Amino acid sequence: MVTTKVEKFLVSGTPNTPCLVVDLDVVSMNYKRFKKAFPGSMIYYAVKANPAPPILKKLAALGSWFDAASVLEVERCLAVGAAPQHISYGNTIKKLDDIAAAYDLGVRLFAFDSENDLQKINVAAPGSKVFCRIMTTNTGAAWPFSDKFGCSPDMAIDLLIDAEKMGLEPYGLSFHVGSQQTNAREWGKALACIALLFNKLRKRGINLDLLNLGGGFPVSYRKDVLEIEVLASSIQKYIAQNFGDRLPTIMFEPGRYIIAEAGLLRSEVVLVSSKSYGAKRRWIYLDVGTYGGLAETMNEAIQYPLRTLMDDSEKGPVIIAGPSCDGADVLYRNAGYELPLTLKAGDFVDILCTGAYTASYASIDFNGLAPLQEYYL
Amino acid sequence: MVTTKVEKFLVSGTPNTPCLVVDLDVVSMNYKRFKKAFPGSMIYYAVKANPAPPILKKLAALGSWFDAASVLEVERCLAVGAAPQHISYGNTIKKLDDIAAAYDLGVRLFAFDSENDLQKINVAAPGSKVFCRIMTTNTGAAWPFSDKFGCSPDMAIDLLIDAEKMGLEPYGLSFHVGSQQTNAREWGKALACIALLFNKLRKRGINLDLLNLGGGFPVSYRKDVLEIEVLASSIQKYIAQNFGDRLPTIMFEPGRYIIAEAGLLRSEVVLVSSKSYGAKRRWIYLDVGTYGGLAETMNEAIQYPLRTLMDDSEKGPVIIAGPSCDGADVLYRNAGYELPLTLKAGDFVDILCTGAYTASYASIDFNGLAPLQEYYL
Repeated sequence: MVTTKVEKFLVSGTPNTPCLVVDLDVVSMNYKRFKKAFPGSMIYYAVKANPAPPILKKLAALGSWFDAASVLEVERCLAVGAAPQHISYGNTIKKLDDIAAAYDLGVRLFAFDSENDLQKINVAAPGSKVFCRIMTTNTGAAWPFSDKFGCSPDMAIDLLIDAEKMGLEPYGLSFHVGSQQTNAREWGKALACIALLFNKLRKRGINLDLLNLGGGFPVSYRKDVLEIEVLASSIQKYIAQNFGDRLPTIMFEPGRYIIAEAGLLRSEVVLVSSKSYGAKRRWIYLDVGTYGGLAETMNEAIQYPLRTLMDDSEKGPVIIAGPSCDGADVLYRNAGYELPLTLKAGDFVDILCTGAYTASYASIDFNGLAPLQEYYL
Repeated sequence: MVTTKVEKFLVSGTPNTPCLVVDLDVVSMNYKRFKKAFPGSMIYYAVKANPAPPILKKLAALGSWFDAASVLEVERCLAVGAAPQHISYGNTIKKLDDIAAAYDLGVRLFAFDSENDLQKINVAAPGSKVFCRIMTTNTGAAWPFSDKFGCSPDMAIDLLIDAEKMGLEPYGLSFHVGSQQTNAREWGKALACIALLFNKLRKRGINLDLLNLGGGFPVSYRKDVLEIEVLASSIQKYIAQNFGDRLPTIMFEPGRYIIAEAGLLRSEVVLVSSKSYGAKRRWIYLDVGTYGGLAETMNEAIQYPLRTLMDDSEKGPVIIAGPSCDGADVLYRNAGYELPLTLKAGDFVDILCTGAYTASYASIDFNGLAPLQEYYL
């Protein structure tokens, strides 16, 4: 799972820990694989997954388009040469000034899920294309979006009609099945709902063109998940079933899928201890934790594969925690991790598949611990 | 609850949101009040609660000592003029190099809770004073430390004996009842246990001097809590009961108590929406969230008081969320918050009592959203 390029860097570069090392070739490979799995679709990389300039540059060069969550993310895409017409402002929660700033930068495609946001887009980005996000179930997702985003389908109809009245271009509909989604039927359910909305809106004189299926494509962390080709085949079947020969323009917003596997987070064991005599599990304290970039370990939702340099030796059960003076900074307690019995302070623990949603989550200054160092190879 | 100084700054300074505004006079007042409630005790401010230089400077000038969680925190205390002999390295999770660095800076007091850490202190900080943290229950705490810190009492005895054999100075014992603790009996239980350990160690020839009661002193967030004087009176009774006339040196590590009330976090409403027709609750999206400094809203543990400029008008139930594209970035869903029905995008929502555990938790770059601006008045 760890590439030769990364291995060589770890040996020759001897970076200080904790650090994130990303192999851009893997980013490239995953992008191409995703594109091949969904031929003819538009791919907007979800910048929030990892906004590092080398990644954006690599993806821009490969022809990727970009899904931005903020004006700063828009600017970062432009900085690596992305065209503004290839950037979607995908966050449904936007200040008026931010919409205006994105519009000034040339962005003409905006997500929304409420009357309030639509009104602001109309004021600050007149004439732009807009797509409405609908709420769907997130069953099966490791990191669900809950009901924070999207509106009900009947409200979406009214809002898209309003958009047209305002002079905006009602362009399409979007949904998101939740991150790290492993159940193809979640896409199927949403697509059935969306197809109905396309039809209802057509009868009201609005011909949508865009079908945005969002992201959520799963990555093999500790457990292997469905290959992207298998999942893609199911999703394409659902699209064909629901849209027949009236195929809309298909858009995806993968983030995790593109970048997670490309990253390795090297950490050092700070302390190994037992809390009492006869304790069944050792505590392993690493120099990175919940506040240092591993926020997705919350409730042990994302379970990263771990690697040590002594993985052939006998292992025993552990609780794994971060280095801060915060009781909530415990990574894994219930997930059944085991680590070598000989593991000691100063040894490395490599946390794999950490390219997505890590470095940018790190706190600026919690406990006086520095954010992650990042290396892009 | 908001001081005139802060109110004036909000009007005349018109800071961009989100921002944290801290009144240093309140810091000063709380420090003095705490000191008066526990006369004769040593107060080590828990730097991690808010490490901003103006706070450290103010507290150093008042005679406060400091509890540091990392070498960077030690350096920050020294930078405002604190003497190294007034700094305690209170984190039980330390790298050898960090212990050495703190020792080089003059620190001679270290916490520990494991054999592994003790050995490192012996190597890197020979002859230093050490105190052992024991595990206690955290019943009643809003932000418990779980079992991440401390060891069992019988292990503490052996470790302190080991410390002496190594040539370190076995100085005392510590515990922490969990943050935002409102139950005085938790201190009582721990003190009874600690007193027993003092006696047992005396019989083994080790005369401890330090009794470190940690922090955890509660702040009135949405609900009023016990006045510090009332809590102090109970705790002092427990100390007298358990230690009689053999009173050890008493040490406290307050953080939240000193600084929380001094801070106001001004945020702006980004969006107000309903997810469906007939929805009973509006969603209020602020320009600050879980990843922007409000990490302690996790599981709605800390419930900050909120204030708007239209609090006299009719209110209705809301779900309050942050501005990021992350489904977990929801602040309050179940806590029963209500906000004015007329509240709209662009209005301010002031989040009160936010001086502690906010600014330094903010992520460096999540979703391209900037960390909090900070103002110390």
